[in-house]
Amino acid sequence: MSDLDAVLARVDADLDASLERLFALLRIPSVSTDPAFADQCVACADHLAADLKSIGFDAARRDTIGHPMVVAHGGPKPGSGAGPHVLFYGHYDVQPPDPLEKWESGPFEPRIVETPAGKRIVARGSSDDKGQLMTFIEAARAYMAVNGELPLPVTILLEGEEESGSKSIAPFFAANQAELTADVALVCDTGMWDADTPAITTRLRGVVHDEMFVTCPSRDLHSGMYGGAAMNPIRLLARIIASLHDDTGRVRIPGFYDGVSDLDAEIKAQWDGLDFDESEFLGDVGLSIPAGEKGRSVLELIWARPTAEINGIIGGYTGVGSKTVIPSMASAKVTFRLVGDQDPAKIVDNFRAYVRAQMPADCKVEFSPDGGGNAALQVALDSPHLAAARRALADEWKREAVLIGSGGSIPIVGDFKAKLGMDTLLIGFALDDDRIHSPNEKYNLKSFHRGIRSWVRIMDELAKG
Amino acid sequence: MSDLDAVLARVDADLDASLERLFALLRIPSVSTDPAFADQCVACADHLAADLKSIGFDAARRDTIGHPMVVAHGGPKPGSGAGPHVLFYGHYDVQPPDPLEKWESGPFEPRIVETPAGKRIVARGSSDDKGQLMTFIEAARAYMAVNGELPLPVTILLEGEEESGSKSIAPFFAANQAELTADVALVCDTGMWDADTPAITTRLRGVVHDEMFVTCPSRDLHSGMYGGAAMNPIRLLARIIASLHDDTGRVRIPGFYDGVSDLDAEIKAQWDGLDFDESEFLGDVGLSIPAGEKGRSVLELIWARPTAEINGIIGGYTGVGSKTVIPSMASAKVTFRLVGDQDPAKIVDNFRAYVRAQMPADCKVEFSPDGGGNAALQVALDSPHLAAARRALADEWKREAVLIGSGGSIPIVGDFKAKLGMDTLLIGFALDDDRIHSPNEKYNLKSFHRGIRSWVRIMDELAKG
Repeated sequence: MSDLDAVLARVDADLDASLERLFALLRIPSVSTDPAFADQCVACADHLAADLKSIGFDAARRDTIGHPMVVAHGGPKPGSGAGPHVLFYGHYDVQPPDPLEKWESGPFEPRIVETPAGKRIVARGSSDDKGQLMTFIEAARAYMAVNGELPLPVTILLEGEEESGSKSIAPFFAANQAELTADVALVCDTGMWDADTPAITTRLRGVVHDEMFVTCPSRDLHSGMYGGAAMNPIRLLARIIASLHDDTGRVRIPGFYDGVSDLDAEIKAQWDGLDFDESEFLGDVGLSIPAGEKGRSVLELIWARPTAEINGIIGGYTGVGSKTVIPSMASAKVTFRLVGDQDPAKIVDNFRAYVRAQMPADCKVEFSPDGGGNAALQVALDSPHLAAARRALADEWKREAVLIGSGGSIPIVGDFKAKLGMDTLLIGFALDDDRIHSPNEKYNLKSFHRGIRSWVRIMDELAKG
Repeated sequence: MSDLDAVLARVDADLDASLERLFALLRIPSVSTDPAFADQCVACADHLAADLKSIGFDAARRDTIGHPMVVAHGGPKPGSGAGPHVLFYGHYDVQPPDPLEKWESGPFEPRIVETPAGKRIVARGSSDDKGQLMTFIEAARAYMAVNGELPLPVTILLEGEEESGSKSIAPFFAANQAELTADVALVCDTGMWDADTPAITTRLRGVVHDEMFVTCPSRDLHSGMYGGAAMNPIRLLARIIASLHDDTGRVRIPGFYDGVSDLDAEIKAQWDGLDFDESEFLGDVGLSIPAGEKGRSVLELIWARPTAEINGIIGGYTGVGSKTVIPSMASAKVTFRLVGDQDPAKIVDNFRAYVRAQMPADCKVEFSPDGGGNAALQVALDSPHLAAARRALADEWKREAVLIGSGGSIPIVGDFKAKLGMDTLLIGFALDDDRIHSPNEKYNLKSFHRGIRSWVRIMDELAKG
């Protein structure tokens, strides 16, 4: 039996004990948003640090002004030649369990529920993210049990504020940059494509926001006395907003698509081959017509195309009934989702120039102070770490992993890139029906078991290089 | 000395006594919006009824569920052959005097202030509307004093709720329709063109309002997860609003201009000849470019052209900072100012059809329940009453009266037309600098004196037919 097979056999043999350890973790109500549970968050961090020490990690609870982090180091010394140094990230805090009355059993009393589709682990945090982070820890435990060592240098970072704003992350990175910097980050907080198809999230859209305040008359006017003579800022603002997209859904701001590439042919073929029902995706929210650029699939639109979106608008009288006012001012909030190499600062500059160019000489526009923004993130298709993970997942699941995108931003991944210079592989085993953040959250036993095996294989492949 | 000259001479000789009577009226703080002054409104109505009786009118306070009306009848019996029967309307209630500290003397302690430009009567209500309504009553008093009779049948209606919503007017009209119906209504609550140029307001724009609620997704969505796939109702609403006007400022709703005529040549020439400074008018509110249809003067735009105006808009997140939401719904309030024969109901129908035609198949729009509306009002240029008033004013002021418009609606005039079938001549002697509704409201002594003389001449000319 190869080393790898021995470790995988150990995972299989140890599954009941792995489950017991996960249950022990799930019994700690580490709700991060509610100060009443602050002690439980500390207890949870202590529990994890002790567990990691028991495996052989150099692990400690690391206090912050919020809930503590857990940081652990294990495996060969970084730079000793054994594989790339990986930073594994997960979070031990959970969403509040409310509404309690909708749970079929106590949210912090984990249990196995048998269903025709297989066994499920039911508890708050079973999927998000205690079940997922334990897949990696159990993989490391199996390696240590069989080989007495990990195949590559591993740093583990477990956060306790992911569900409540991650306020301590940025200062923690700043204070511990050298300790936390590795060759690649691994995050287990995402999903599979479906119950049989693994997925790696390799692209996240960036985001940048702005707000425009359009002023026409210097004060609110009576629409009878001035209507027809005075420009209405709502009319002007509407004209500007309407001009943001052309008839094909393309954003008309000059320079907007600088740095946006068409989809790689391999990725496009992979996405086109996915069992994704556009009608169902849109139908779930009452729609049927994709709103973005014509001629592109919905997956491409949300994963690989930029957007200009008005998130809020207000002007004039908005109470009950009518008021014959021409308001002085109207305003709108806008966000741009970014892909490829779009530069957030340049996007905002171009947007503002585009708006200013449409202002009549006697009206004015002001913008909110710059709020920063995140560029898009994309793991290069020729990344050796990505290649290793793809091989590993294909071996375990007997299916190619889908390289998916996420339309939203995941701040921690941006921080890994911006603050620690690392690419991230987002590999998780959750499923769409896991009901994370909702009552009766579950994690399939198969996700847990095969997730552990997947990390064993990923570490093995990364170590082989 | 002709009869007319004798009456005018009586006006001149009696001016000091007329002023004393006006002062007595101005001393009553008949503030209609504040319930604390309800007794003063009753006292004011009693005072006026008594005064009208003393002249020879059959006058009475007429209670309503709000502040009382005063109705008086005088002169020959209607239908007896003596001139047209006129209904004179004014209002005895006044705006609150706040802010009190900005008054140079007590708002209800009328006084004469001498200025290089002439004497001014300073008090709350001196112009709006006690000073104005007393010009007509003093004219009637002079006629009765000299001739023992009025030259034509006169009904006087004085309201006490004009500054607080006129809630009792509609039921009062309904209950007293026969009594209040005359051949023509006269209202003294408007202004001169300038201190030397009389004016008759012969056209008022109508108004009708609507509200549209645009729904795209069935619930608020995360702009990362759905941005690019899901239609944003703010984008759609902006597109609809932007489509309401073409590049020349013309409203694009099909059928919108049905019933709109170009300006009569005589009126156009008169307006073009007015000393009206478009730059100053717009500059006062911080603007310089007329917003309406290109190629038309500002006076034409506000007096004689219809508008489509968005009075309010709201959608999505409007608090501080940003929120990455694609809202389910966005809404806007719209009013249309109407001229000529535009039909309010048809305008709303056409607007709704125009909006519906722009809705994608998977989005929907709903409208507020119909709120009614007022058609525009316009006194026919060949009206004999208008001709009589023009002759009278030209005689008194040695200048042709300007036939002006008002961009706003004056509900009482609409009611005279709709409920009592009467045209209205709006003839007043206020000036733009009268500071109505503001501290130190004033009425020029010249406005008061020549106003009385003007009504003497108007009654005379109307009686001559």
